[in-house]
Amino acid sequence: MDGVERKTFVQTQRKVSILDMVLRVLALILTLAAAIVLGMNKQTKIVPIKIIATLPPVSVPVPARWHYLSAFTYHVVTNAIACAYAAISLLLVLVIYKGGKSRGGLVIVIIVLDLTMVALLSSGNGAAGAVGIIGRRGNSHVQWKEVCSVFGKFCDRVAASVLLSLLGSLAFFFLVAFGALRLKKLN
Amino acid sequence: MDGVERKTFVQTQRKVSILDMVLRVLALILTLAAAIVLGMNKQTKIVPIKIIATLPPVSVPVPARWHYLSAFTYHVVTNAIACAYAAISLLLVLVIYKGGKSRGGLVIVIIVLDLTMVALLSSGNGAAGAVGIIGRRGNSHVQWKEVCSVFGKFCDRVAASVLLSLLGSLAFFFLVAFGALRLKKLN
Repeated sequence: MDGVERKTFVQTQRKVSILDMVLRVLALILTLAAAIVLGMNKQTKIVPIKIIATLPPVSVPVPARWHYLSAFTYHVVTNAIACAYAAISLLLVLVIYKGGKSRGGLVIVIIVLDLTMVALLSSGNGAAGAVGIIGRRGNSHVQWKEVCSVFGKFCDRVAASVLLSLLGSLAFFFLVAFGALRLKKLN
Repeated sequence: MDGVERKTFVQTQRKVSILDMVLRVLALILTLAAAIVLGMNKQTKIVPIKIIATLPPVSVPVPARWHYLSAFTYHVVTNAIACAYAAISLLLVLVIYKGGKSRGGLVIVIIVLDLTMVALLSSGNGAAGAVGIIGRRGNSHVQWKEVCSVFGKFCDRVAASVLLSLLGSLAFFFLVAFGALRLKKLN
């Protein structure tokens, strides 16, 4: 590379590294928010329950917690892992771009880890989304009744958490795509 | 590149393209198998149901079909899409590697599409897996009863389909990772 090429290369790398870091910060915020919104989600409702058929129903407080369903636990865990990784990877990209140098080996490791986060978050979104849909609509074939007419606030927060996590997984998706594009541009 | 370098480059490209194609064929077979195993899944059981409390229970045939639960429909659709894409991408990689040439732009497009398949299959696996777990264990908090003690064969096939799809998504995962590695090697 001559002087002009070197300058253009460093400028392009700087632009890419800023985009990379913005996406990582976004992924961190979104997955953290998704984990918090579902992890702090609880709602208690007073529901009339008939204990003895001949007596009037008794009002019982029924709680809804995120860890009652394994799909929601999995969703919170995947988002917590992705959030922690986003923080660690921010430090790693600082090492990569320090001084405008390109370290291909580390870029590949980061692309594979970003890709793992896409897979992990997508599976968590699928799990929480599928259970959320049954909670909202119920299913007559297996006689699983909908619960969202009682625990509306809880269900809305599950939906919000899935949406945040979906946006977080999109951020990791673009990180993998831009990572590959960066490797191509180095050719 | 001189003559020796060119020969080594073409040999490396050929090895990589064979690995790429083997993984694509594997992905095609696994996702096709996953879609068929769940898409052809049906079981009918004769279940005694009490229609009138004072009369003895009546034996009623109760069917279990894959499209009764939206998570299973989503799982079949994602695997069908991934299977069709695996077939199309096999033709695309033949274009890329024809004559040992490297076409960076098309490689990037294929990496992004492979990545989309990882996300799509992972979300399908998460959805079918989460609903399958509730079907197997039930959930006392939302009063969703387990159904796998009655529809055991149906549940086993759901598990087999999720496993096949998981292996299919792993094939796409490695395709993205090797795609990035290939771009790095071209540096």
